[in-house]
Amino acid sequence: MRAPVAFFAWCALLLACGGLLHCAEAAKARHLKWEVSHTEGVVIHWHGVRQIGTPWADGTAAISQCAINPEETFTYRFVVDKPGTYFYHGHYGMQRAAGLYGSLIVDVADGEEEPFKYDGELNLLLSDWYHESIYNQMVGLSSSPMRWIGEPQSLLINGRGQFNCSLAAAHTPGTKQCTAGGNRHCAPVILPVEPNKTYRLRIASTTSLASLNLAIGNHKLTVVEADGNYVEPFVVDDMDIYSGDSYSVLLTTDQDPSSNYWVSIGVRGRAPKTAPALALLNYRPNRGFKLPAIAPPVTPAWNDTAHSKAFTTQIKARAGTPPPPATSDRRIELLNTQNKLDGHIKWSINNVSMVLPATPYLGSLKLGLKTALAAARPADTFGRAYDVTRPPHNPNTTTGDNVYVLRHNTTVDVVLQNANALQHNVSEVHPWHLHGHDFWVLGYGEGAYRGDAADAARLNLVNPPLRNTAVIFPYGWTALRFVADNPGVWAFHCHIEPHLHMGMGVIFAEAIERVGKVPKEAVSCGATATALMNGDHP
Amino acid sequence: MRAPVAFFAWCALLLACGGLLHCAEAAKARHLKWEVSHTEGVVIHWHGVRQIGTPWADGTAAISQCAINPEETFTYRFVVDKPGTYFYHGHYGMQRAAGLYGSLIVDVADGEEEPFKYDGELNLLLSDWYHESIYNQMVGLSSSPMRWIGEPQSLLINGRGQFNCSLAAAHTPGTKQCTAGGNRHCAPVILPVEPNKTYRLRIASTTSLASLNLAIGNHKLTVVEADGNYVEPFVVDDMDIYSGDSYSVLLTTDQDPSSNYWVSIGVRGRAPKTAPALALLNYRPNRGFKLPAIAPPVTPAWNDTAHSKAFTTQIKARAGTPPPPATSDRRIELLNTQNKLDGHIKWSINNVSMVLPATPYLGSLKLGLKTALAAARPADTFGRAYDVTRPPHNPNTTTGDNVYVLRHNTTVDVVLQNANALQHNVSEVHPWHLHGHDFWVLGYGEGAYRGDAADAARLNLVNPPLRNTAVIFPYGWTALRFVADNPGVWAFHCHIEPHLHMGMGVIFAEAIERVGKVPKEAVSCGATATALMNGDHP
Repeated sequence: MRAPVAFFAWCALLLACGGLLHCAEAAKARHLKWEVSHTEGVVIHWHGVRQIGTPWADGTAAISQCAINPEETFTYRFVVDKPGTYFYHGHYGMQRAAGLYGSLIVDVADGEEEPFKYDGELNLLLSDWYHESIYNQMVGLSSSPMRWIGEPQSLLINGRGQFNCSLAAAHTPGTKQCTAGGNRHCAPVILPVEPNKTYRLRIASTTSLASLNLAIGNHKLTVVEADGNYVEPFVVDDMDIYSGDSYSVLLTTDQDPSSNYWVSIGVRGRAPKTAPALALLNYRPNRGFKLPAIAPPVTPAWNDTAHSKAFTTQIKARAGTPPPPATSDRRIELLNTQNKLDGHIKWSINNVSMVLPATPYLGSLKLGLKTALAAARPADTFGRAYDVTRPPHNPNTTTGDNVYVLRHNTTVDVVLQNANALQHNVSEVHPWHLHGHDFWVLGYGEGAYRGDAADAARLNLVNPPLRNTAVIFPYGWTALRFVADNPGVWAFHCHIEPHLHMGMGVIFAEAIERVGKVPKEAVSCGATATALMNGDHP
Repeated sequence: MRAPVAFFAWCALLLACGGLLHCAEAAKARHLKWEVSHTEGVVIHWHGVRQIGTPWADGTAAISQCAINPEETFTYRFVVDKPGTYFYHGHYGMQRAAGLYGSLIVDVADGEEEPFKYDGELNLLLSDWYHESIYNQMVGLSSSPMRWIGEPQSLLINGRGQFNCSLAAAHTPGTKQCTAGGNRHCAPVILPVEPNKTYRLRIASTTSLASLNLAIGNHKLTVVEADGNYVEPFVVDDMDIYSGDSYSVLLTTDQDPSSNYWVSIGVRGRAPKTAPALALLNYRPNRGFKLPAIAPPVTPAWNDTAHSKAFTTQIKARAGTPPPPATSDRRIELLNTQNKLDGHIKWSINNVSMVLPATPYLGSLKLGLKTALAAARPADTFGRAYDVTRPPHNPNTTTGDNVYVLRHNTTVDVVLQNANALQHNVSEVHPWHLHGHDFWVLGYGEGAYRGDAADAARLNLVNPPLRNTAVIFPYGWTALRFVADNPGVWAFHCHIEPHLHMGMGVIFAEAIERVGKVPKEAVSCGATATALMNGDHP
């Protein structure tokens, strides 16, 4: 009656390899087990790994594979295509928000080198934590009136956080001191460093909701990697990290070595009700739990959008990164709105809220099942007359599959258009994550995207960063470009877990005719299982 | 992203039909939908329906069918083989305890008559309710040290119960009055009756843990049906109802009609920490919520085992019920013990705690998959030297499939032997429920079953009741007999949800070679799906 889920990943989890060939050479199986509910299926998404040639290993329920049921085994076999800072997580229901995640670091291959030097490495996986179970959260989100999940009770650093106490009580009026020592779940993460060295901090966020900002007392941060791609180094005092983002920053331990320093994580973009998360940068040989003399750095005000934009737009591709094609073959404009469906609040894309099918797309499309897609394809644009500054004129939405069929090797532009939510004067931040690809982030704009010369002038075709996650700012738009060169079915969605659950996503069905043979274990459910059992599709 | 589960049942849910032919004639599809978790599978067991010829519709996950995954559809088609009082419930993980249950009443066919008369009918489905989610309960039960689920917070009558208040506050010192009126979830069930009539009360229990006793102020109860079988009528002041039991009782409204009367449900067999559940027998034209002047009847002391035995052993088959075969072909003796497995507390049968397979038995056995069963079959007996009065001498258990393979049309005796649990001086009550069959309850004994002449003398071969659920009393044994005339794979287990979850059950694999063609939707998972997709078993 137990429910272990077994799978293998090539080169996963701190294994030293990178690049297709080297990875295959260095391949070593790791056997991971999770204990999940006795009645729940599970899948694992390898966030940032492009799954080139293995779309069935992308780990998205209802999209790339059948959920792995209790007691069943599914083997994830894939090649990590480039070194970088990644993570893995559940991609079924809201299981990521329930804590099903971990870091996935791909080192450079033997004999290769990173384009920057460092003496040591530290890893920070950031998340948020709710006391309410995801089951209750899901029921609340689907209820009418909706019961919103609210703000998290704690922010977590490598799974550790505090509740109802403060690590930095000396600097936080009205709070009591947490028990900082020992090996308790609430004990802070200690990041041990030697003075006068340079460290690579790998930082990723798998939060359910919270957008974050990180700062380290007295220390500057040099950003060198974003989402597994090298960026032109730049120096900041603090940095934003949205759910789905990953970064590497270099930090030099050039401060007074007799002290430790606070690593502070705060909430961005929403009025914070959650205390900052703290970790300790521990200058050896100080004790790990020696509390810093100076206060934790205060992260910027949650609604200082200008500060966020300044950080995000500083990110440029490092020299040597392939530039984007000069033109695109297709432009898909996606309006992000909050809508209502029979009184239920939904997130909609071009007025259609995404629902996922009983039978995963990769199998049903590959087998050519007639029921795989609805008759109508979603629109490539929304009306130019739409007023993004006000609540939707027509708040009623429909549901749909939101599947965009992409032709092989076409260059696709996506413009993500933010808008006002159902309430007046509310427009939220949404970090969109693309599976199966990196995209170039061509640019950001304010207000409605018009596709005119002024908008075109805002695009950077010289050194836009390659990423797999990009944010849209309130009332603004973000333009992305990618080449449809990886046959498969790929989710593209807001990485905020409750927003995805409320329909905020689309699907790219890309060159299905070129997808290789899908393993049976990925299609042994629903209509594909029936078709295969009936011998309809040998 | 919603998870409706659709299925059909013939003649289910208060449809008027009974008997194979009449049922088929009266068949009318009912479409039921449950909202379950977005990541959970589900199955529905039709408790008491024997599923003659349709073992794939018995609704037992890992046994009779693959779990129905979110967004998938499974159609339950079966014939209700005889009229009676039944219920349906989830049979996957502990979903029954989460509230997945309802009543299933099969009326006599047109032109047929019950062997007793009544003027009206009332229905009571009893259950218990925990504030802790079943997910947390399951984690606690599997933990070391185990976190036991404890006693329920409320008892429920037709899904309604009270917490932290009393309906009968006037008679319950130190409590506050519940809000009895209105249509609140906590409002009591009102049972409207006319004076000087006879009513049939249908009563069933689907509790997770609690054994119950029911009494109605000033009224006698005449028991006429147990588990869908007529019994020789007998009159009681109160009656026990174990989880899995169903009864019909006749009640005559011959009391002062100016008053209403309390229906009271209390806990039996475990030191109760749960307040009695109350409903109102409403003599019209009194208002429904008019509180009775006299106190609710006090159900017997929880540990008055003699009272329980007196009730249970009064139950005899009504004249005309088929008697059991005079002899049996096989006797299976099942020792019920609590054991430990690597420090985890388990319930074991003959020292083996049942675990269920990844691929349901009905499909894997029917397809002849070599992996369907472990090499060793469980034992038909346990050592005569076992001392049932003390904690197990060897408390260590193993896990196993506990599958007994039964030959077609053999007569099987089962002796359920209770024993001391891990703690000294603890032996609990366990109601065992058999799928696919009724059995004759031949008798009950104290202490260890020896199979000698004295034990044989305790057996009733004349008019033992036919039932699908039978209790074992502390330190005692219960002897059952059934004929293996229904090919299929049938669970036989303690109906206490956490006990089943902890391994307290066995499986009867009966005449698999005679099972008809299993619908593909019942086997579209695990090794059977793989075999069928590979064309190994056309």
